[in-house]
Order: sequence, then C-alpha cells, then structure tokens
Amino acid sequence: MDISHIEHIGIAVENLEDSIKYYEDVLGMTCYSIEEVVDQKVKTAFFLVGTTKIELLESTSPYGPIGKFIEKKGPGIHHIAFAVKNATDALKLAEERGVTLIDKVSRKGAEGLNIGFLHPKSTLGVLTELCSKE
Amino acid sequence: MDISHIEHIGIAVENLEDSIKYYEDVLGMTCYSIEEVVDQKVKTAFFLVGTTKIELLESTSPYGPIGKFIEKKGPGIHHIAFAVKNATDALKLAEERGVTLIDKVSRKGAEGLNIGFLHPKSTLGVLTELCSKE
Repeated sequence: MDISHIEHIGIAVENLEDSIKYYEDVLGMTCYSIEEVVDQKVKTAFFLVGTTKIELLESTSPYGPIGKFIEKKGPGIHHIAFAVKNATDALKLAEERGVTLIDKVSRKGAEGLNIGFLHPKSTLGVLTELCSKE
Repeated sequence: MDISHIEHIGIAVENLEDSIKYYEDVLGMTCYSIEEVVDQKVKTAFFLVGTTKIELLESTSPYGPIGKFIEKKGPGIHHIAFAVKNATDALKLAEERGVTLIDKVSRKGAEGLNIGFLHPKSTLGVLTELCSKE
C-alpha cells in the first residue's frame, strides 16, 4: 500500500469562519488556504501541523456528504487521508484485499490531489481517503 | 500553544486483534506496541505513519470512555492528539482562551506521555488531546 504519512485529517464544521478563528486564536495554527470543492459541496480551509494538514469542511448544501454527516453525527472528525504514491493503484490494491471502495478510480480533490475513498463499512468505521500527487 | 505535530489519532475499535490485522494486512502498517491503560479502561495498539501514530483503542469495560463512545456512535475516529512542549502549560493556555478542560492538569497516558483532554463542546465537536514528553 506504501503509505508515507497522514496527508490530512478532515473535520466537519458548521461554520468555516468561526472554526478558522478557533484553530487560529485558540490552537495557534495558521490557515493557509480556503478552497471550494464544488462537486463535494464543501468549502474547505487548510492548516499545516507538522507534515499533516487539518482540512476543515463546511457544507455548501444540506444534501452534500458533510451536510448529511453533521445532521446525523454533529460536527467533528470526518475522515483520515493517507498519502500514497498512486491513489488509483492503492485503491485497486485495497479492493484486492477485500475493501469495499467508494471510488473505483481516483478523482480530483482539494489542492489538486488525486483522491479516492474506502467505504467505512470495511475499514472498521473509519472513513478513509487515499491520496497522491501522481 | 506551540503545537509541533499531530502526535496521534485515536481510533475506537470493537476488537483489537481483528483491527490490528486490518491495519497490517490491508493498509500495510506495522503494530509496534500493545499496551493496557488501566485507568482509561482500554487496551491500545500503536502504528507509526510518518511522524504520527495511529492508536487503536479497545475498551476493557462497557463503562469506560471507549465503551460508551462505541455504544453511542459505533467504532471510528475517537480523538486527535497534538504534541506540545508541556501539556500542563498548554492546558492552562487553552483554558485562558476559553476552552473547557476535561483535565485541569496533565496526567500519565499511554507510552508514558503527559496528556490532558479538552472538552469537545468547546472544540467544535472534536475530542482534543494535548500531550508532551515533559
């Protein structure tokens, strides 16, 4: 699978502006980028903590994945993303090893990365993303 | 606050042995330590991914924090732990900045670290741990 590090932790928030304020003013981090990912119906804000990013996710629609997540579970940690060499190859390998995929091949995500998700039903309840620059 | 990196991600699991198998056989990680933390009523397993650890947590009692979490939310990501220089100082600073603390001063956690938790009600739903070697 060749996971090098945790690329980011995705956190579902109700209000991006208030949440950025908490991460900056209380935890002392710096937001370096705000980006809308239209097909995921989210606005995102990024912070770098060591070699891992915190990705705050505010839904732009109650029908998007983050909107549904917050309705069901409330705001909080949404997913973990592992950096791999090639996301499509890693998705294929995960499937060969018995994992149910949400994405059969990688697609473009925030920051131009190639990303794909594993289904939490086969990853012990953890929504897991694999992502790569390639 | 002086957060250097994400020290670990805590993941609540129903069965430690099966979960270690998934992280090793599917994701290709290596469990380097298994430890029981009696006062937290958990058995833990650790994996290193880049500079961050994955800490799997199996409850040894339905009345412990992980047992209650799984009963309410099911298995999944439980908390995020940030590495700081001195956990007690960082807890104090968080309180000064308006955060409600679970631990007023740090206590000993897994791997001999000094740890303390911030209450998720004041951290946007994210159970947040601060930990340090000092």
